[in-house]
Amino acid sequence: MTKKRVAIIGAGPSGLAQLRAFQSAAKNGEDIPDIVCFEKQGEWGGLWNYTWRTGLDENGEPVHCSMYRYLWSNGPKEGLEFADYSFEEHFGKQIASYPPRAVLMDYIEGRVKKANVRDWIRFNTAVRWVEYDDTTQKFTVTVHDHDKDSTYKQEFDHVICASGHFSTPNVPFYEGFDTFNGRVLHAHDFRDAREFTDKDILILGASYSAEDIGSQCWKYGCKSVTSSYRTAPMGFKWPENWEEKPALVRVDGNTAYFSDGSTKNVDAIILCTGYKHYFNFLPDDLRLRTANRLAAADLYKGVVYVHNPRMFYLGMQDQWFTFNMFDAQAWWVRDAIMGKIEIPTDKQVLLADVAEREAREEESDDVKYAIKYQGDYVKELIEETDYPTFDVDGACQAFYEWKGHKADNIMTFRNNSYKSVITGTMAPVHHTPWKDALDDTLEVYLQN
Amino acid sequence: MTKKRVAIIGAGPSGLAQLRAFQSAAKNGEDIPDIVCFEKQGEWGGLWNYTWRTGLDENGEPVHCSMYRYLWSNGPKEGLEFADYSFEEHFGKQIASYPPRAVLMDYIEGRVKKANVRDWIRFNTAVRWVEYDDTTQKFTVTVHDHDKDSTYKQEFDHVICASGHFSTPNVPFYEGFDTFNGRVLHAHDFRDAREFTDKDILILGASYSAEDIGSQCWKYGCKSVTSSYRTAPMGFKWPENWEEKPALVRVDGNTAYFSDGSTKNVDAIILCTGYKHYFNFLPDDLRLRTANRLAAADLYKGVVYVHNPRMFYLGMQDQWFTFNMFDAQAWWVRDAIMGKIEIPTDKQVLLADVAEREAREEESDDVKYAIKYQGDYVKELIEETDYPTFDVDGACQAFYEWKGHKADNIMTFRNNSYKSVITGTMAPVHHTPWKDALDDTLEVYLQN
Ligand SMILES: Cc1cc2nc3c(=O)[nH]c(=O)nc-3n(C[C@H](O)[C@H](O)[C@H](O)COP(=O)(O)OP(=O)(O)OC[C@H]3O[C@@H](n4cnc5c(N)ncnc54)[C@H](O)[C@@H]3O)c2cc1C
Ligand SMILES: Cc1cc2nc3c(=O)[nH]c(=O)nc-3n(C[C@H](O)[C@H](O)[C@H](O)COP(=O)(O)OP(=O)(O)OC[C@H]3O[C@@H](n4cnc5c(N)ncnc54)[C@H](O)[C@@H]3O)c2cc1C
Ligand SMILES: NC(=O)c1ccc[n+]([C@@H]2O[C@H](COP(=O)([O-])OP(=O)(O)OC[C@H]3O[C@@H](n4cnc5c(N)ncnc54)[C@H](OP(=O)(O)O)[C@@H]3O)[C@@H](O)[C@H]2O)c1
Ligand SMILES: NC(=O)c1ccc[n+]([C@@H]2O[C@H](COP(=O)([O-])OP(=O)(O)OC[C@H]3O[C@@H](n4cnc5c(N)ncnc54)[C@H](OP(=O)(O)O)[C@@H]3O)[C@@H](O)[C@H]2O)c1
Repeated sequence: MTKKRVAIIGAGPSGLAQLRAFQSAAKNGEDIPDIVCFEKQGEWGGLWNYTWRTGLDENGEPVHCSMYRYLWSNGPKEGLEFADYSFEEHFGKQIASYPPRAVLMDYIEGRVKKANVRDWIRFNTAVRWVEYDDTTQKFTVTVHDHDKDSTYKQEFDHVICASGHFSTPNVPFYEGFDTFNGRVLHAHDFRDAREFTDKDILILGASYSAEDIGSQCWKYGCKSVTSSYRTAPMGFKWPENWEEKPALVRVDGNTAYFSDGSTKNVDAIILCTGYKHYFNFLPDDLRLRTANRLAAADLYKGVVYVHNPRMFYLGMQDQWFTFNMFDAQAWWVRDAIMGKIEIPTDKQVLLADVAEREAREEESDDVKYAIKYQGDYVKELIEETDYPTFDVDGACQAFYEWKGHKADNIMTFRNNSYKSVITGTMAPVHHTPWKDALDDTLEVYLQN
Repeated sequence: MTKKRVAIIGAGPSGLAQLRAFQSAAKNGEDIPDIVCFEKQGEWGGLWNYTWRTGLDENGEPVHCSMYRYLWSNGPKEGLEFADYSFEEHFGKQIASYPPRAVLMDYIEGRVKKANVRDWIRFNTAVRWVEYDDTTQKFTVTVHDHDKDSTYKQEFDHVICASGHFSTPNVPFYEGFDTFNGRVLHAHDFRDAREFTDKDILILGASYSAEDIGSQCWKYGCKSVTSSYRTAPMGFKWPENWEEKPALVRVDGNTAYFSDGSTKNVDAIILCTGYKHYFNFLPDDLRLRTANRLAAADLYKGVVYVHNPRMFYLGMQDQWFTFNMFDAQAWWVRDAIMGKIEIPTDKQVLLADVAEREAREEESDDVKYAIKYQGDYVKELIEETDYPTFDVDGACQAFYEWKGHKADNIMTFRNNSYKSVITGTMAPVHHTPWKDALDDTLEVYLQN
């Protein structure tokens, strides 16, 4: 019998988790399918692969990176640690709890270098189009190899879409944006807070990007932050030059008008208005359409596309848990593809699973409930595979504490430390408070 | 016999010229093919359809627009006037020679509104993929209709690619860009010169974008312009706060280092480094690969794709002539599709035509030679169709004068006026010198 062929789209944390899942089965002597991972960037790491570029990249592809200089983890690393590869294993010691981007990138890379899966990845290769043929039950994947400037097609039995969902910005228009006398940008294109030193900035949105980009700009010396919410304020204890305003109504010249009648003159507008699930390589019958929520639409067990169960999606949920949730999903998908887990053939069963997850998510608006909900999901998947079990409730605990630390002081929460649920050791307190740590290189961060 | 079906990709000036060409034949009582024009933007006009957006648009598509606020034509309008629709016909009077973007957009729209071709265009519809089947001799075009968020396919006998080639930026990396403490952007993402008021800006490149974006920033009060050339300086008589430097070597912090050993501290870097011909919807056998030159590669008569003569490209040349050249091409392609012009069936003949054009372009580096070369090309095509003949040599003459006016003074050349080769009337001198005309709305421009 010829081997199954599996295509993975994307070599970010989710795609890499899938490679590691298959490699770990192979290492255990199992006969794994042929794996091809297509990655449009020249390097792995997904969003964590920082670039100074914005807009279109050196290959003419939309820049995938939404990260920026000086970005530190916004949640404790104890909530995302790989169960099969601890921070201590990677760095040779326990490290502080909110690593800057470069440190987490190093950690992500460490595991896949050890697993030796790089050869499965075709870099600089963008997936252009995918089709499924009901008769042959095969997917045809069309790609563009930028190194050769050449397109080609290959057939696969399964496609695993791990292309991320925080790279296509949701960019609303407000009256006056087209004649604003300065820069209007989305968080996706934000790169260096120093561009805004001594400036009055307006931030739209009230979620993680709003909070973190505003904080960066504050840290690097902007004159003032005005943040505007549509639904509810973030409500943190802001520094004196940060003001929360209700909804933006319009802009005229450099003046922003808010729904409470107040105004503010600003130099730049940063739209922290979220992202869209966007798959420009998928036809209607394969394309996931979902809001950014914990119970993503149309995914049985959060990973199997209900309208074509040979197609899988990784990491499409809104995320409290990240790397370890991607792992839980990847191990589960691996076992489904290898026939160790059975996917029900009755579509009604798949749909009922999705409906149950949605209903359960909607039961409460409470943050702790949401964290536990996703923790339970991670547990549910892990229990069905050989992914190392770990103290998921302990990780939830770290998230609860984190929420409290943020409420205490949004500019100091990153100075706290938590206990690893993988190795049981306590993280050191970082040598420098976040607000004073202007050098965020790996070398400096590890000087504990 | 069923009608031929023709797909046009793009409703910029080139695609619109093609619609107008077919409509004019229909008006003459000819039996034209079925026409479908796919346009990914919500409006027609191509690059002239200004948006404040950068990066990805409201549909998640790469923003097509490379134009910016305050952009005025960089060549005299007498060089681009439609032979079948004069400026006087459109505005009811002759207007000054260097119209701002909004004025030219109005003019472009005027003709196609009059021709009533809007119904042929499917807006917000991005072409995702095109394939040609040798057996059926049909093209299958796959598109994404953003209004319905739905993909579909249609078959065509011909595809005319008019998707432009000034929207995918060529973005080089220089050492230090990734750690520059400010904004690094490509001309494609430049929108409002006021962002750079009181700033020291570095411009890379020595062509039209470099010259014009530098001039904009100067006009709107930047502190200084430093422009760096790789091959040769632009060599204009610059204002005192504009300095031309040789090649950039690297950047460190905010300091730029040049190949002559000099340095300059700058606040922002604008890469005016040109564009790439880029077709992310075309497989190898249909995809044009060419440099930005007058004799575009692989195009018989500058429009027929030599590797598949059922496929056409419009406007793929570097451009002295624009709107009227697109017209010349569109009328010619129309007649080729309708069987009034015969395309040789021997591929060697097609290749020889391309080789001859290339050799002839390479005969001289002289600017006047180049202008005349493209003028002759326009004449050549026009002679083979019923597009109204006009005094192409007279248009060349306007270009020669323009070159002289720029050499005289780069900040005043737009204050000159030229004679229309379509109506024979002289353009008025504009009421306000370009450098003082901060309000560039249509209403103000037309106050002559
Ligand atoms: C600004 C920001 C900050 C964040 N900070 C944190 C944090 O501090 N901690 C945390 O745990 N999580 C954070 N996240 C969450 C983040 O989603 C995950 O950490 C993680 O990167 C998601 O991994 P992924 O592999 O699912 O997607 P991605 O990381 O987005 O990777 C997807 C990959 O698919 C590739 N790809 C996409 N389209 C194609 C195509 N057509 N062809 C080929 N390849 C393609 C991309 O190039 C990319 O490499 C942050 C997210 C954002 C936006
Ligand atoms: C900054 C700048 C300034 C310029 N200024 C002048 C000037 O002053 N005078 C002058 O004569 N010329 C100027 N030009 C030259 C310009 O190239 C032409 O004027 C003209 O816009 C070219 O027309 P086009 O239709 O060939 O391409 P475009 O204007 O680029 O139009 C292409 C169209 O195709 C659409 N499209 C692209 N991809 C797809 C897809 N996959 N699916 C569906 N639709 C698609 C686009 O949305 C767009 O509407 C300028 C160019 C630039 C970059
Ligand atoms: N490591 C880090 O430090 C870091 C930094 C940034 C982001 N991230 C991650 O990035 C991901 C995305 O976060 P995000 O904040 O970008 O997106 P998000 O969580 O989806 O939030 C989007 C925000 O935009 C608002 N919004 C949407 N449309 C709007 C409109 N038209 N007008 C005004 N406001 C509008 C929403 O308001 P409503 O509530 O009214 O809908 C919401 O506040 C998260 O996973 C986050 O953890 C991490
Ligand atoms: N209406 C207007 O006012 C207006 C304004 C702007 C542009 N335009 C139009 O837009 C089109 C494109 O013009 P453009 O100037 O953007 O592109 P362009 O004419 O192709 O010029 C590209 C420039 O970038 C330089 N370059 C390329 N790679 C480089 C690198 N790695 N390092 C340094 N320099 C590099 C080139 O230098 P080399 O010579 O060394 O190769 C050249 O000077 C033209 O049709 C133009 O008319 C019109």
